[in-house]
Amino acid sequence: MIYELLEKYEADFFVMYADSRDPNFFYATKFRTPDPSFYMIGKDGTELLIVSEMELRRAEKESRVKEIASFIDLGYFEKLNETKNSKKALAMVFTEALKEHRARKILIPNEFPSFLSFYLKDHFEIEVVENPYSDMRAVKSPEEIRYIKEACSAVIDAFEYFLKLLKSERNVNTLRNRVETFLFERGFYAEGTIVSPDLESSNPHSIGSGVIKNHVVFDVFPKSRVTGYFADFTRTVIIEENQDIIEMLNACIEAKNRAIDKIREGVAAKDIHNLVCDILESYGYQTIRNKAKEGFIHSTGHGVGLEVHEKPKISENDEKLKSGMVITIEPGLYYRSKGGVRVEDCVVVRKSGCEVLTKYEDFVRLVG
Amino acid sequence: MIYELLEKYEADFFVMYADSRDPNFFYATKFRTPDPSFYMIGKDGTELLIVSEMELRRAEKESRVKEIASFIDLGYFEKLNETKNSKKALAMVFTEALKEHRARKILIPNEFPSFLSFYLKDHFEIEVVENPYSDMRAVKSPEEIRYIKEACSAVIDAFEYFLKLLKSERNVNTLRNRVETFLFERGFYAEGTIVSPDLESSNPHSIGSGVIKNHVVFDVFPKSRVTGYFADFTRTVIIEENQDIIEMLNACIEAKNRAIDKIREGVAAKDIHNLVCDILESYGYQTIRNKAKEGFIHSTGHGVGLEVHEKPKISENDEKLKSGMVITIEPGLYYRSKGGVRVEDCVVVRKSGCEVLTKYEDFVRLVG
Repeated sequence: MIYELLEKYEADFFVMYADSRDPNFFYATKFRTPDPSFYMIGKDGTELLIVSEMELRRAEKESRVKEIASFIDLGYFEKLNETKNSKKALAMVFTEALKEHRARKILIPNEFPSFLSFYLKDHFEIEVVENPYSDMRAVKSPEEIRYIKEACSAVIDAFEYFLKLLKSERNVNTLRNRVETFLFERGFYAEGTIVSPDLESSNPHSIGSGVIKNHVVFDVFPKSRVTGYFADFTRTVIIEENQDIIEMLNACIEAKNRAIDKIREGVAAKDIHNLVCDILESYGYQTIRNKAKEGFIHSTGHGVGLEVHEKPKISENDEKLKSGMVITIEPGLYYRSKGGVRVEDCVVVRKSGCEVLTKYEDFVRLVG
Repeated sequence: MIYELLEKYEADFFVMYADSRDPNFFYATKFRTPDPSFYMIGKDGTELLIVSEMELRRAEKESRVKEIASFIDLGYFEKLNETKNSKKALAMVFTEALKEHRARKILIPNEFPSFLSFYLKDHFEIEVVENPYSDMRAVKSPEEIRYIKEACSAVIDAFEYFLKLLKSERNVNTLRNRVETFLFERGFYAEGTIVSPDLESSNPHSIGSGVIKNHVVFDVFPKSRVTGYFADFTRTVIIEENQDIIEMLNACIEAKNRAIDKIREGVAAKDIHNLVCDILESYGYQTIRNKAKEGFIHSTGHGVGLEVHEKPKISENDEKLKSGMVITIEPGLYYRSKGGVRVEDCVVVRKSGCEVLTKYEDFVRLVG
């Protein structure tokens, strides 16, 4: 994909300057570092990673990039002495590295820092592009799918733990903290876990507060502290019978399951989204297709991987699903006078169907 | 500081486009959001925050910025229809907002994304600058100091818990996970906690592995999950007597305490750093001043706040300490043949001295 992009723009190199909190940088280099590093990949297959001196040996051992250099190797200190400006000295180091590789035209991603792009533009022809690694990351390798499965298995355990707690504890903050601690002990970092009760759940972005009375939307999306991969999962738990909520939940469950039945390689994302809208509308609910302010007011889902929200978007999007994509399907319905419901699974797209990674019953009623 | 900078460059606005994971954005707006937002501050005091539609009401309630607009308010959809390019549509929205405020010359921070700076540079005069909020953040308000104190108090509890565990548990990974879980339950997120044993501790960047035999360097730097502020604290625990390690540790303790005695408003950072080097050298250890590869091979300390490492640097740095700065003092000594030691406190600089936020005995021997 990088080579196609370089060819399309008749460019010599694609470059990034980032640390591994940027999932595209981590994906490209497989190097975890808190310090910004420079990565360049050329149309002839050249790859070079430039890191701080302190990280050199670790990068040689851990990164998948074969050729590693340090800022100091490439004359950073001399340039710093000359300019007395650390940013300019860095920009000079990278410019020399690119010139040594005969770069003439360079692609930089949208998020590339301006101190560097403003310097590079005086030395090279520059084109700002959407980061191609964002698209590459959408299709997962078997190893990545294994990592996401581990996270999905942890969320099911966390949900069962939540249900157990719910028998004697109804304070939202206490529940959230106990579930997030449960996950943390097992190696997963969850923040902003949605434990959204009753009428508050009518706002899909509210993480929840107060005490649960009638029902609760539980949406957890932890990240493995080891692999960095996420899972994403939602269930609505009925505590007191409420006909409106139960009907809304049943409609979402049907929409989710029929969408899951339709998923396979080659289906367009928008066809999945439109099926969900069709089903919810058939029950009389309004949807985002009609710019509704209440009802189904968000998209059907999104990719999950090194970010909890990544490509592809399962919405009004022509993109075709590919085998190996991991996506969520998460229909929800939200009414200020009634509250909200949502049900969400994580699935892997396969050639002739999909595999659900978060298997758990859809309709959950608190028992006992 | 913003106004002085605008005046210095004869510029009309300083702008940021970031989400609240960028501490400078959070500090300027006091708005927590995972979605990139646009902030502009003008020489006449104008401030405008532009957020996604979905975040509008929350931004109005939570941000300290008075004037809030949404992308949609400012014609995002019309521009998207026109260009079919979401990044370009955003850039057009921000350009119009700046033009409406009669901007002519604009300052952008080093890290400003290139998709936006490349568009803006065709409409305005642009200057790339060091983000002024990084400097402003160095001096803390009483509220920020309270937040850091809370985190410092949690690290002392976590260290006492660690010492208790250490009586029966010597596996580094188990200890790290239990301490990080202890902190998580109390509302703090710690990652990469250094529990570095024996010879491995000779590498100050190693987080530690295996089983502790003779001594261990414990360095924890959790962030409050509520306030976002960090603490930073290190002690070396002696388990088996080892004269080399004990001498190294005593030298570091003396260096730390004499540095702390010297800290007050107006002292240059480099004078603190040089005092630490002087003391360690007086004991015959080599230091970073002589480009040593072993001995005291890092700087004396750094600011602590919304980032664990922020300004000021306590190293060969002319900057003068100011009342309200929160800094670490952390001399360490590292020898491949002996192992490493470090002792670190977090302090607030005051007019005529400093206040230690991590009060705990310096020389710690495991008892019982």
